[in-house]
Amino acid sequence: MQAHIITIGDEILIGQIVDTNSAFIAKELDKIGIEVSEISSISDNKQHIIDTLNAARKHAQVVLITGGLGPTKDDVTKYTFCEFFKDELVEDASVLANIERIFKHHVGRPMLPANRSQALVPSTCTVLMNQNGTAPGMWMKMDDTVFISMPGVPFEMKALMTDEVIPRLQKEYSRPYILHKTLQTYGRGESEIADTIEDFENNLPSDIKLAYLPALGKVRLRLSTKGPDREVLEQKLGEQIAKLQELIGDIIVGYDDGELIEVVVGNLFKQKNKTLAVAESCTGGQIAAAITAIPGASGYFKGGMVTYATHSKVELLKIDQKLIDEHSVVSAPVAEAMALAVKNWYKSDFAVSTTGNAGPSRGDSDADVGTVFIGIATPDGVFSQEFKMGSQRERVISKSVNKAFEMLQKEILKN
Amino acid sequence: MQAHIITIGDEILIGQIVDTNSAFIAKELDKIGIEVSEISSISDNKQHIIDTLNAARKHAQVVLITGGLGPTKDDVTKYTFCEFFKDELVEDASVLANIERIFKHHVGRPMLPANRSQALVPSTCTVLMNQNGTAPGMWMKMDDTVFISMPGVPFEMKALMTDEVIPRLQKEYSRPYILHKTLQTYGRGESEIADTIEDFENNLPSDIKLAYLPALGKVRLRLSTKGPDREVLEQKLGEQIAKLQELIGDIIVGYDDGELIEVVVGNLFKQKNKTLAVAESCTGGQIAAAITAIPGASGYFKGGMVTYATHSKVELLKIDQKLIDEHSVVSAPVAEAMALAVKNWYKSDFAVSTTGNAGPSRGDSDADVGTVFIGIATPDGVFSQEFKMGSQRERVISKSVNKAFEMLQKEILKN
Repeated sequence: MQAHIITIGDEILIGQIVDTNSAFIAKELDKIGIEVSEISSISDNKQHIIDTLNAARKHAQVVLITGGLGPTKDDVTKYTFCEFFKDELVEDASVLANIERIFKHHVGRPMLPANRSQALVPSTCTVLMNQNGTAPGMWMKMDDTVFISMPGVPFEMKALMTDEVIPRLQKEYSRPYILHKTLQTYGRGESEIADTIEDFENNLPSDIKLAYLPALGKVRLRLSTKGPDREVLEQKLGEQIAKLQELIGDIIVGYDDGELIEVVVGNLFKQKNKTLAVAESCTGGQIAAAITAIPGASGYFKGGMVTYATHSKVELLKIDQKLIDEHSVVSAPVAEAMALAVKNWYKSDFAVSTTGNAGPSRGDSDADVGTVFIGIATPDGVFSQEFKMGSQRERVISKSVNKAFEMLQKEILKN
Repeated sequence: MQAHIITIGDEILIGQIVDTNSAFIAKELDKIGIEVSEISSISDNKQHIIDTLNAARKHAQVVLITGGLGPTKDDVTKYTFCEFFKDELVEDASVLANIERIFKHHVGRPMLPANRSQALVPSTCTVLMNQNGTAPGMWMKMDDTVFISMPGVPFEMKALMTDEVIPRLQKEYSRPYILHKTLQTYGRGESEIADTIEDFENNLPSDIKLAYLPALGKVRLRLSTKGPDREVLEQKLGEQIAKLQELIGDIIVGYDDGELIEVVVGNLFKQKNKTLAVAESCTGGQIAAAITAIPGASGYFKGGMVTYATHSKVELLKIDQKLIDEHSVVSAPVAEAMALAVKNWYKSDFAVSTTGNAGPSRGDSDADVGTVFIGIATPDGVFSQEFKMGSQRERVISKSVNKAFEMLQKEILKN
């Protein structure tokens, strides 16, 4: 079963926003065995929308559209649907009641005609009630294809996907399972791994797909398959992974079912009932931000310090100025002193620290742009590692954050 | 002049990654007057790629493709190009030299045959040298359309766009200017604004487009136009903005040329030679992370504390436990005490603090999920504001970060 996602709105086409809706929708569909064959972003233009709907229905049985449902003139999805389905708009009483409820409880001013017009929907559509906004979702069929329209505001779309779209798709269609297993490797390049597992790859069953995903210092290998029996799929992928384990077990550092490393590390801390604090210089708060973006972080995360300026390392973390003078602020001794200091300040079991030069210009040290020291304090001691993270600021920071979590993962697993 | 962006790779279609490449490419093209009419994400499948290339050339004069250029078997773009252009692969000496250079200086192991095969390019293509990776960019023409292939790794693609693609497009094609002006408003809903400016909108010249961009507590209005003379466009948009200023001047809080608010605020701090520190609870480091993601942050940012656990507010920020007991940890007095404390600790001119409950469950306070207090300490004093940010954790955090920057912007402008 194939799906086509269509996102409507000029803000994506002029690069004003990044389209995160498609990734969310694709992931939810993948979980219930629906393959996305194409994602299209197009403008709020009636003819372009109709052409794309027509192209989509040639290969897809599910077409999901986001955007273009606002109360203003630049939003044309609903009117386009009427043209496409040769239907007309009628006022839906339940949608109107929902809009009235939202205005009464959340808006605090009278409704305008434009707001009431959001209760107009194509007469043959099934309304998907939007609890979080005034634009309803719509579900309409043409021949063998279902067309689902949702608002483009991410949290409204997400709630509609979870509460309405996915349950309906599960009920109406029988779907195969799609299974992915992703292996994280570390230390070898894409082509080197491909060379090592050439025979394995040549002998892979035709219904198992292998993909290489190189990113920031590591390569992930993803095996995918689909079929009607989940257990059979699990077993088939398990067999192939056992083969990979034999071939490249030395560089496999973990398995990844799409979970973020901060989620994995957070769960480990909670399971082991340990606490964490962070002292960040070059990563500037991004480690703390990644940790606290996940619900439940308060179960293990004590807090952190962002000591961006050199003298704040001295004044706040109480790092010895002599240590900095002697080794420079970007150095192993300073990274280790930072980790120990923040661990003591927050009375945590573990701490991680970063000090480095993210660029583009050199800061309060002679260290090359891209040089980063990451320190880890554990219940047993402290250590640090030096990294060369390249010369792009954004990349230096994100690699450092990633590496900090990897180092933490290793240490918490030992404890 | 129309462009079509095609991103190739299953990782986007299964929702494993968000496609950020397209937004970058679209923004760069927009800057030089090239309109993106469609963005397509498709799988690493030869026939699907060829079909999409054929569809794209019907309406676009520039087709930009990212991905599928790796050294492994799942990467098929180059072979598909040969089929599409009826061409064959030949080894390019300059690309080979570049790969050898990268291996010598950055990889530290001998090249494999798969690496050497990356020097193979279609015989009629113009190579776009990739200084940051082993997969070259390619520039090929068919009739009136140019097809540009780039690697999918974001920093390699970005360097190629900036150094090779944009300069070549500028040289080879005469393009109009595309101008956008975005107004930030605050305090009124999308439909309410539309109602107020209905006559204005009905009388807009047909070559000026108005879009409403509602997001997290505010609505932005974007006016766009294009034409051969930049000054004329500036003037035309200026006239319309003057009209809007008359109609809704009371709710316009700023103009936005696509600049992030953290960039705007950072520039204000640097211009005014003032410094900043942050104390974050519910935002968990995201304010600091947003500040330090921008190069040059060290010019005004002293650092921050992430006091996530209640007792770390007492132990580290030295907030009086009695104050917390009396008012609860999520309260105006605590927000103000946090801002003052971190300002003193870091000896900064300004400080911002957040304390709130981002959910999903209640923390160390009885405050409803979504209640957030933001405190601002200035050279003259301290104050705070209470917000109800809704019930979605992710949204509560990002709205709080955004609001903190808005409040800072207002204060620094006064000083």
